[in-house]
Amino acid sequence: MIKYITRVLMIFIALSQISCNLFYVAVRNVPVFFSTPEQVKNKIKQPVKENVRLSALWVGHATVLIQMDDKVIMTDPLFSETAGEFARRVVEPGMDEEDIPKCDLILISHSHFDHLSFASLEGIEERSSHASLLFPSGLEKYLPNFTYSLVRMDNNNGYEDVNRYIGEKTTLSGIDVTSVFAQHWGGRYGLDGYLWGDNAYTGYIIQYHGLTVYFAGDTGYDPVKFKKIGEMYNIDLALIPIGPCIDCNHCGVQNHAFPPCAVEIFKDIKAKRMIPIHYGTLYFAQGYVDAPVDALKSIIANDTSLKDKIDILKIGEQKIYYEK
Amino acid sequence: MIKYITRVLMIFIALSQISCNLFYVAVRNVPVFFSTPEQVKNKIKQPVKENVRLSALWVGHATVLIQMDDKVIMTDPLFSETAGEFARRVVEPGMDEEDIPKCDLILISHSHFDHLSFASLEGIEERSSHASLLFPSGLEKYLPNFTYSLVRMDNNNGYEDVNRYIGEKTTLSGIDVTSVFAQHWGGRYGLDGYLWGDNAYTGYIIQYHGLTVYFAGDTGYDPVKFKKIGEMYNIDLALIPIGPCIDCNHCGVQNHAFPPCAVEIFKDIKAKRMIPIHYGTLYFAQGYVDAPVDALKSIIANDTSLKDKIDILKIGEQKIYYEK
Repeated sequence: MIKYITRVLMIFIALSQISCNLFYVAVRNVPVFFSTPEQVKNKIKQPVKENVRLSALWVGHATVLIQMDDKVIMTDPLFSETAGEFARRVVEPGMDEEDIPKCDLILISHSHFDHLSFASLEGIEERSSHASLLFPSGLEKYLPNFTYSLVRMDNNNGYEDVNRYIGEKTTLSGIDVTSVFAQHWGGRYGLDGYLWGDNAYTGYIIQYHGLTVYFAGDTGYDPVKFKKIGEMYNIDLALIPIGPCIDCNHCGVQNHAFPPCAVEIFKDIKAKRMIPIHYGTLYFAQGYVDAPVDALKSIIANDTSLKDKIDILKIGEQKIYYEK
Repeated sequence: MIKYITRVLMIFIALSQISCNLFYVAVRNVPVFFSTPEQVKNKIKQPVKENVRLSALWVGHATVLIQMDDKVIMTDPLFSETAGEFARRVVEPGMDEEDIPKCDLILISHSHFDHLSFASLEGIEERSSHASLLFPSGLEKYLPNFTYSLVRMDNNNGYEDVNRYIGEKTTLSGIDVTSVFAQHWGGRYGLDGYLWGDNAYTGYIIQYHGLTVYFAGDTGYDPVKFKKIGEMYNIDLALIPIGPCIDCNHCGVQNHAFPPCAVEIFKDIKAKRMIPIHYGTLYFAQGYVDAPVDALKSIIANDTSLKDKIDILKIGEQKIYYEK
């Protein structure tokens, strides 16, 4: 019996040494499971509009519904009540699933449970069954059977060669999509990614009718590669993660940029506008869900050059950038 | 018995969750204890020279002997065979203790075992008994009785207010010393620092006879504060840590800048020259001891503007910057 307990605990120690985070995510979410997610009022029923060239609707976390002229693109769809086994939403999704329009592209940045949600992909599958589902090479091993058209994107994340920061360019429904550098880690729950050295994660550049949108995925800061992306593209809108963080005034950790370095990424890529994402929706091991955006607001207050460039949306809010 | 084992292991789990690093440091260093530290050939016997205005001798890790005209300054002296209980040197110190000249100032950046070495401070105490020992406020609780003149430096590390990145300025033996922003963590072994929220860590600006040296201490990257330091000082020489790291092509983690962001710090502070430190001496939980400098060399090879500005010294090597 002693031997059994010792062995089980030793295995847990070995595992927890590698992924301390998982333990905290579970602990932090215990109280959340006894609360009700905040409701979103006045949800938009018809997010796609005839007269719009470029708009973005923040559904929550890393989920954004983008309209580019007649095309509809969704990033990392998360509509389920929990993300994985541990994390539950504190705010409901900013759109009802029945109002999600027919999507042309669905972009998956990586396989972590808060970005690759099987239930959410199933929920929107019927109306968008022929949408292209794009994902970084290596993620396919996690995918169940979908009717989506599967598009595996090569993702040279520049680990080996600092100059290889672009993955692959492909054209789908007339939309050019390029996988670009992101600095994160793979696997499904974090732990397995560390163990297996999986590197299926990517950012995306989406180009259509002269418009360019950048979806950073989940990424830490890099002082060289985002500048190179900025040299290559004329980005109209950038979706950049700002969480999760406790000390949100820091640059970030290796695999997550916090607000100061999310702003650096925005400056490096020279985008016209930015929407911060990856906060306000789920509890991780870190601080309160709005800690990242509070830190971002304080940065904007001290840097007037950012004021008209960073659009902090409420969950469910849509921003129209260009009209026809 | 089961209860006892369970309790002990649960305590270990709780502790190890907070400081996973400590476990790895111990494990990594087992083989090192069965090896002999590499010898340094042709050690310099008389590092202080009459005709020199500015020179720096790298003793190893974060220990640098600086000559500024007639003054001698030493940073984070580490001459002992082990740093703390776990980490042992892989290369011997670049100077013999009996050759260490009389120091005017000894700067301690923080209390981690590889920066605040009691045995090393004892070893150089006799000849430099009246030297000023400078340390960030809060570190005094760790200090044993020394004959050094103790100088506690206020260290507003800018966590509360992003504009407070300068601590305190003091003048000692005619040398102006200012404590400046660093992003690290306190305590003695890392673990205790996380538990107690100790923030006794700092960088230093040293000004004497029109010369300015910057000792970064141990720090992560910040996209704002180093630029502010760069605006305030005309730095001749910067001592900047580049390790410890495994994925040394990344910016870094929250509390350590890896080579790409150590170079960013160097650019942000607009220093004339840089000596990389904090590598090549001790095994931590991370990669091989020269991984940081190999990554730095690759950055320099790709950025010609750095070639004549970053001086990679061997342990025991001295670089003379200005002569009289």
